[in-house]
Amino acid sequence: MPLLVTGSIGIDTVTTPFGMSENCIGGSAVYFSMAASFFAPVRLVGVVGPDCPFNLSEVFSGRDVDLRGLERRSTSKTFRWKGSYHDTMEEAITEAVQLNVLAEAPPMVPEEFKDSGHIFLANTEPRLQLQLLEQISNPSFVAADTMNFYIEGRLDNLKKLLQRIDCLVLNETEARMLSGERNIRISAGAILGMGPKILVIKRGRTGSLLCNSDGRMFLLSAYPANVIKDPTGAGDSFAGGFLGYIAQEQKTDFETLKTAVAYGTVVASFTISDFSLSGLQSITRDDIEQRLGELRQLTAF
Amino acid sequence: MPLLVTGSIGIDTVTTPFGMSENCIGGSAVYFSMAASFFAPVRLVGVVGPDCPFNLSEVFSGRDVDLRGLERRSTSKTFRWKGSYHDTMEEAITEAVQLNVLAEAPPMVPEEFKDSGHIFLANTEPRLQLQLLEQISNPSFVAADTMNFYIEGRLDNLKKLLQRIDCLVLNETEARMLSGERNIRISAGAILGMGPKILVIKRGRTGSLLCNSDGRMFLLSAYPANVIKDPTGAGDSFAGGFLGYIAQEQKTDFETLKTAVAYGTVVASFTISDFSLSGLQSITRDDIEQRLGELRQLTAF
Repeated sequence: MPLLVTGSIGIDTVTTPFGMSENCIGGSAVYFSMAASFFAPVRLVGVVGPDCPFNLSEVFSGRDVDLRGLERRSTSKTFRWKGSYHDTMEEAITEAVQLNVLAEAPPMVPEEFKDSGHIFLANTEPRLQLQLLEQISNPSFVAADTMNFYIEGRLDNLKKLLQRIDCLVLNETEARMLSGERNIRISAGAILGMGPKILVIKRGRTGSLLCNSDGRMFLLSAYPANVIKDPTGAGDSFAGGFLGYIAQEQKTDFETLKTAVAYGTVVASFTISDFSLSGLQSITRDDIEQRLGELRQLTAF
Repeated sequence: MPLLVTGSIGIDTVTTPFGMSENCIGGSAVYFSMAASFFAPVRLVGVVGPDCPFNLSEVFSGRDVDLRGLERRSTSKTFRWKGSYHDTMEEAITEAVQLNVLAEAPPMVPEEFKDSGHIFLANTEPRLQLQLLEQISNPSFVAADTMNFYIEGRLDNLKKLLQRIDCLVLNETEARMLSGERNIRISAGAILGMGPKILVIKRGRTGSLLCNSDGRMFLLSAYPANVIKDPTGAGDSFAGGFLGYIAQEQKTDFETLKTAVAYGTVVASFTISDFSLSGLQSITRDDIEQRLGELRQLTAF
């Protein structure tokens, strides 16, 4: 069953200790779609301006990514982000951001996409996430991401969103901010109390934590990649692998969710191995399966 | 078979967001011995001054910790450390340190301890670690810890030590410093190239990495403790659980080492649940077994 994603399509300029990638393709919906397409058909909903230098049909060539939800808004400009990573590359430093079209009305979900079952609302203003969700007739599983800016500035809307989704995916700093709790276990419990039945906390090089409202919990280490060149898109790729596997399996029991977290982890480890989408463009599902087996072996005791 | 530890016995004053513990017992040999005593008989070698306010026989009452290697040096003063932890308590801020007796000649290993098979050389000047090791007749398994100060200032001696030990235990920042490599996997390979057959990298809340010179690797997440009041002693308690289990099993195959890392992880999670030794004094081996089972379940997929 197709998996629908709403999120950004961006023009990124990224500097890391391994080099610079100028005006390359980025954005949450792009990383998510590429990652999820290893597992399930993807429907992308996003908007760019006429300045967008990328041909998305070419970018997703050979992948089952339906671009009928891609809007080219002639009066707008494409989202741009310029950032850098230093030392251990754990934190992105934003040097410049131009929201451009992301600050306007969200794109419409096309009629043909409204029967989508699995939905990922990549991070944007929570009110917009709700508006996008309301366009879907009868979703079976809805996950969303958020970020510090909306936790601090749009908490009321975010709390409404949390009542409407099945699963929240966010990073550890955001989880602390949202819950007001330093301890990850207590923080997770507090967030589950806000509505979602399932919570995934992305912890960077620490790995990830999955938990649900029945008190189940799962901890997974990050894959120890030999090569980490550019962490951009790791979180969205993780979400793409995670949701992609859930859409493939059409199940959300805890064992399936655990495996989905492992696939998300592995896909993200390929993303960070190179700049922009290169790490994901050069692999096959077999590479993912092989690394999943390795991760299983590395963590079993 | 008894497990011998050489290391510090200290008077600590620690402040965390959860309170302050003034002039409490601390030191690497103390935390290690308490942690290891759940698994195997321990022989402690360390030195204090006449100002030491602790009766170590009482501290280790009911534990199989042999104190015949404890020297009271009448002309010296006991090691003192004052530190604090803030925010997420990931890093200790040293506010004052008085090496005192630790800056003098090391204690002698008593004749009755010289047949010890398993040895842990807690961190001190690597030349002293070598001198202590040379007093043991025929050790079967030697592990050592080190720290930034000796990596920066005593690298020649440290490299000699690394040629003489079976296993190095150190934290991630120290591993980066020693190897000159940012990537943990490459860093681990570089350190194994310096001599030890086995390496354990302690990664704080991220967990730990075990690897050996045959290319085997194991990643374990930290136990997600509900209560973390004072991280002091976590690393030495980890080493105590790790070496204690190895001494109990009298084996060093990779499966045994993996389980040993898990025991180290669990014991450390009890240490940090309260100030000083309180977290370790209030538990039994059954509590450790129960939490090990929980950790196994939390990480299996």
